Amino acid sequence: MALIVAKFGGTSVADVKRIERAADKIAAEVARGHQVAVVVSAMAGVTNQLIEYCREVSPMHDAREYDSVVSNGENITSGLMAMALQKRGIMARSWQGWQVPIKCNDVHGKARIVGINIEEMKKRLDEGEVGVLAGFQGVTSRNRITTLGRGGSDTTAVALAAALGAERCDIYTDVDGVYTTDPRIVKKARKLDKISYEEMLEMASLGAKVLQTRSVEMAMKQDVPVQVLSSMEEAIGSDLPGTLVTREEDIVEQEIVNGIAYSKDEAKITLIGVPDLPGVAAKIFGPLADAAINVDMIVQNISKNEKSTDLTFTVSQSDLPRAIDTLNKCEELKDTEIRGDDTVVKVSVVGIGMRSHVGVAQTMFKTLAEKNINIQVIATSEIKISVLIASEYTELAVRALHDAYGLEKK
Amino acid sequence: MALIVAKFGGTSVADVKRIERAADKIAAEVARGHQVAVVVSAMAGVTNQLIEYCREVSPMHDAREYDSVVSNGENITSGLMAMALQKRGIMARSWQGWQVPIKCNDVHGKARIVGINIEEMKKRLDEGEVGVLAGFQGVTSRNRITTLGRGGSDTTAVALAAALGAERCDIYTDVDGVYTTDPRIVKKARKLDKISYEEMLEMASLGAKVLQTRSVEMAMKQDVPVQVLSSMEEAIGSDLPGTLVTREEDIVEQEIVNGIAYSKDEAKITLIGVPDLPGVAAKIFGPLADAAINVDMIVQNISKNEKSTDLTFTVSQSDLPRAIDTLNKCEELKDTEIRGDDTVVKVSVVGIGMRSHVGVAQTMFKTLAEKNINIQVIATSEIKISVLIASEYTELAVRALHDAYGLEKK
Repeated sequence: MALIVAKFGGTSVADVKRIERAADKIAAEVARGHQVAVVVSAMAGVTNQLIEYCREVSPMHDAREYDSVVSNGENITSGLMAMALQKRGIMARSWQGWQVPIKCNDVHGKARIVGINIEEMKKRLDEGEVGVLAGFQGVTSRNRITTLGRGGSDTTAVALAAALGAERCDIYTDVDGVYTTDPRIVKKARKLDKISYEEMLEMASLGAKVLQTRSVEMAMKQDVPVQVLSSMEEAIGSDLPGTLVTREEDIVEQEIVNGIAYSKDEAKITLIGVPDLPGVAAKIFGPLADAAINVDMIVQNISKNEKSTDLTFTVSQSDLPRAIDTLNKCEELKDTEIRGDDTVVKVSVVGIGMRSHVGVAQTMFKTLAEKNINIQVIATSEIKISVLIASEYTELAVRALHDAYGLEKK
Repeated sequence: MALIVAKFGGTSVADVKRIERAADKIAAEVARGHQVAVVVSAMAGVTNQLIEYCREVSPMHDAREYDSVVSNGENITSGLMAMALQKRGIMARSWQGWQVPIKCNDVHGKARIVGINIEEMKKRLDEGEVGVLAGFQGVTSRNRITTLGRGGSDTTAVALAAALGAERCDIYTDVDGVYTTDPRIVKKARKLDKISYEEMLEMASLGAKVLQTRSVEMAMKQDVPVQVLSSMEEAIGSDLPGTLVTREEDIVEQEIVNGIAYSKDEAKITLIGVPDLPGVAAKIFGPLADAAINVDMIVQNISKNEKSTDLTFTVSQSDLPRAIDTLNKCEELKDTEIRGDDTVVKVSVVGIGMRSHVGVAQTMFKTLAEKNINIQVIATSEIKISVLIASEYTELAVRALHDAYGLEKK
């Protein structure tokens, strides 16, 4: 007997039929003697409809009111799921974020969970009741509703699993696990049995949208094993060959490279002729940070002119116009040419084995060179190498790298 | 400067455009220096969709979960309305039932409001903020969400007005007031400027569906003047010629008869040959009460056989099969013939002036007789006379009575 948290995403509770199917899975876990806490997303399309209403009323809406509106989709699913479980003879009740409560800070629209009063729910789980928590939401110390940002139900699930000391957090989704790369691009992409938190974090932040990045960070910090599996399959929980996201130490056979990720939401900004003076970087990146624009890859080159330098960095595509605007107002850059380019993509190879193996970067550069793909920017971390290339080469690069590292199905 | 509660029903907030129009009305009240607390219903169709989901999942659903699902429609409107007000430069915030809190008993699905902690909202109203409360909902002492039954937002509005000591409770709806009878049946029906709580209560409970009966009871008990007006008109609040529901003492010119109401949701049960023994009525109506079946008009006749009597009474149509079933199980009625008939309608004339005038009943009976309409049952109260007739005569009877009492437009 174990305590399991099972989270069902939007496509897994898309309509009443899917909610019923998810309830069958939970019933099967209960039949095995497990305690189950469930986290649900909104039914397909509901959240988008609510966001659309908010935009219609006011594009510059109050984030607190936005949260009070968009959080209702999850409330609805949680009640319906509790009913579906009761119909199966299972004691169950819904929990809205404020009822637990899931305590959050007041950064409305992308709040962080700061604590969970788990006693009452735990007591009821111990009495054999299944708790069905509305994901994606919480409540501030001022009793206002907050939401956790897109994909926030993953984070709710991991936080709940941590608070309950759950054995496992099962994330049921519309894919059956984490793949070596996007199967829509590479048909031979292989599902991974296990992946470390660190790798998953890189994959997630690099655009593999299976789990919300924050949920992986939290799972790593709180040491919660997370299993990604398909709600479309008949089997449940541990019977299903999903992907387990876990500690590096729990992965016996560590691959050098485990995945190829890509992110299309990239834009490159090049500053040509930046005065080469101490502190100038701070004067450029300071205003961007103040404007809440996240800067990712940064490369500085020496320019032809000795008194100036060239600077290249990336921001997300949606931030590009604001970033250019902010830089144009920068006194230090009045003689600098500012170029923006949103036809770029970031392709990355990820793998914890990389730490102890040399030549991984060399393989990447050689493979891309053979396909005549120009590398515009390079960035590395302990377990990943990322390159920025022209977006038209995305599929070619991902396929070539997948081949080069031998990631295909065995 | 006054404190006003303004309630907008489903058709008045049917979509974003209507919400905007309602926000304009609130903004106009604020511009006049009034403090305004708003109560909103769900957008058109939302509550029905949520009820349909509940039915799909489980026809025998848990009422607590039903409440947690169907209450979300009002949450959505309240957030959107707060945004729409903010866009107009008005300080505003949404309130969900639990946030105030609107404290209810735990009769889920048709809970009663038992108290309101009004301090925080009042403080904010005093600071110039408009509060937008989600109607139709509250929270139990166990922190579960309850709903107040269909039309419950009216009751929320009146309860809020009472708690705030509001000068007036404006109920914006899709009709422009209370009429002498259903204008769909009688084209010459006249809108009433004022109507007493007592009359409105009779009209509401007799099927004139402008206000929820419970909201009128509460308004009467708490002495809250309620104004019914149209959200479709340009004008606002006191400028609009709606219908004021108020104390009898505040109505100078009291009409003898103020309205003709009818209720189609009636079924007649006739028991032929009931043993004429002391206590037999209790043995018949006891089990019906236990089955939560409401009995309305009751008539007892002497039968041909001296040792037995005939009994006729009415129940609501939806209760008829259960009522028959309950009576069939009654030991005392084993030799009694039980007849059910759902082709009946209750037509009533209502008016406080009736107390001091004779001949009102006579006019009714004479009018119906002239049209060859057979009266099956008669019931009277201080301010109304109701008759049960065959439902096919509904329109004929209502029109004839409307004429007979001279209720047409002046």
